[in-house]
Amino acid sequence: MNSSPITARAHTNIALIKYWGKKDMDLIIPQNSSLSLTLDHFYTDTTVKFDKTLPRDVFTLNGHLVENPKVNHFMDLVRKLAGIQIFAKIDSINHVPSAAGLASSASAFAALAAAASKAAGLDLSRKDLSRLARRGSGSASRSIYGGFVEWCQGTDDQTSYAVPVEEKLDWPIGMLVGIVNSGQKKISSRVGMQTVVETSPYYQGWIQSTTADLKSIKKAIQERDFQKVGEITESNALKMHALNLSAQPHFNYFEPMSLAIMQEVERIREEEHIPCYYTLDAGPNVKILCLQADASAIQQILASKFGQITFEFAKPGEGVRFIEA
Amino acid sequence: MNSSPITARAHTNIALIKYWGKKDMDLIIPQNSSLSLTLDHFYTDTTVKFDKTLPRDVFTLNGHLVENPKVNHFMDLVRKLAGIQIFAKIDSINHVPSAAGLASSASAFAALAAAASKAAGLDLSRKDLSRLARRGSGSASRSIYGGFVEWCQGTDDQTSYAVPVEEKLDWPIGMLVGIVNSGQKKISSRVGMQTVVETSPYYQGWIQSTTADLKSIKKAIQERDFQKVGEITESNALKMHALNLSAQPHFNYFEPMSLAIMQEVERIREEEHIPCYYTLDAGPNVKILCLQADASAIQQILASKFGQITFEFAKPGEGVRFIEA
Repeated sequence: MNSSPITARAHTNIALIKYWGKKDMDLIIPQNSSLSLTLDHFYTDTTVKFDKTLPRDVFTLNGHLVENPKVNHFMDLVRKLAGIQIFAKIDSINHVPSAAGLASSASAFAALAAAASKAAGLDLSRKDLSRLARRGSGSASRSIYGGFVEWCQGTDDQTSYAVPVEEKLDWPIGMLVGIVNSGQKKISSRVGMQTVVETSPYYQGWIQSTTADLKSIKKAIQERDFQKVGEITESNALKMHALNLSAQPHFNYFEPMSLAIMQEVERIREEEHIPCYYTLDAGPNVKILCLQADASAIQQILASKFGQITFEFAKPGEGVRFIEA
Repeated sequence: MNSSPITARAHTNIALIKYWGKKDMDLIIPQNSSLSLTLDHFYTDTTVKFDKTLPRDVFTLNGHLVENPKVNHFMDLVRKLAGIQIFAKIDSINHVPSAAGLASSASAFAALAAAASKAAGLDLSRKDLSRLARRGSGSASRSIYGGFVEWCQGTDDQTSYAVPVEEKLDWPIGMLVGIVNSGQKKISSRVGMQTVVETSPYYQGWIQSTTADLKSIKKAIQERDFQKVGEITESNALKMHALNLSAQPHFNYFEPMSLAIMQEVERIREEEHIPCYYTLDAGPNVKILCLQADASAIQQILASKFGQITFEFAKPGEGVRFIEA
């Protein structure tokens, strides 16, 4: 079998309720359910073509040949699922406007799951696509859907997948993403979260608290209570980063510039009365949840204080879909 | 009764195992035991003279008349203890080399407890001095002693007081104190810790973890294991600050400059192989635990990177004592 090339596009997502810890490292079953917003501005296009003349998978990222064991492992899963033993050419383009910092495994594995499974002759439901994407990267399970998405933790491979919370959003919100370059060597999210699960004295408190946060934010989304959504988002992110400070050994993803931006977001909210709330993931970039109508005002204030930092605005994005290459 | 003027000197102390939360707000009974190092470089001299012609307590700080309800309240406790009803003239001088940032209620209330009780005719044991100082400010209970000091939490006014762990230290260690000025309005430690006790989902984890830390650090001090003492100190401080991030509403005392110094301390340790460990309290100042022999090398590195920040070195200091005014 030589398949036709199949191209899928998936957008990245930013968790408002964080995923931070696995119960099963191989199957990627998380310790808690999480909730994200898919963004339109950052996405990955991936083309997969199975080719029986290939002696192994060939993977290019933005045109450059890359050796990536995670991609090879993922393709093995797809082959097993499809009952085939053919290698593939995989070409990925990451559409990340600023050069650094937001290469996301979420959009990457969501796009790869869709393109590879279809190219392998499978016709997976979105639920099964989410389950498959999860095996590449936990957060990729959420990028199957647009808008607000919940990754229901489940207990095993069958029951751990994302579901849409509100896919077609009639709510003009979005995120400003500030790209802060790090001079520090970073701890991968995989290692970071595992260290936390194994050593943080706060982990049980986190599980209880984030479970309550998830329930509250779903209610706040339903009620279109932006302040509540923002407060829970910011608080949940800080509780996740607090876990890192409490781990053995401790670590954190904040750069001095991250902290300066966080302080400025709080100031804008308190002194300029513009509702905006930050969240951070396993890196120093600061993502700011705001209303679309306020985005350029916030952008201007931030640009005047942090001229060296690019802030890109992103609206809610769509789920994974197939496109012409 | 007109007393002779009595002057006491007390040094500040920096907690290696933090006090962060009260069980009893009025008696200042803490949620956990704590451990500190008294420093020689920062201290308060306080002179108290009871004078029956005074219509109220008169308090000067560094020569300036100050209205301080906490001082008045504290003097009421002393009067009650001594069975007198006379007001006093109280003159305090804070010896803090750098202008800003390390005015410590610990040295202030330890000195006031000693001077006021003696001026009132009391001859308190150090245990009772510690109990009295505690009523002014929890951490003041520890400044009664020099060197390493443990504040045993106890359960009530009788049983909550500090004890010396190693008062005459034959260990050439000390602290570099970096004075970072804050542009932010600060949350007082009183309000901060109370918010944490009432709202942090991590508080039970903190109590368990800090109880274990206290046991470990006492063993490490006994064994003169500097690396262990440092690691526990840094970890315990970060766990305390993690509580603040997890509170509702969240808050924190880090400035971007604090974080930059913390990162640099980690770098000096890892890349230059000089053992040094940071701790922070309810403010942005960074205190660096190090060996006396390494202090000037660390100071030089920090000065070359953070020229605008003053780093003062302090050796272990003595407990409270009476001096000639």
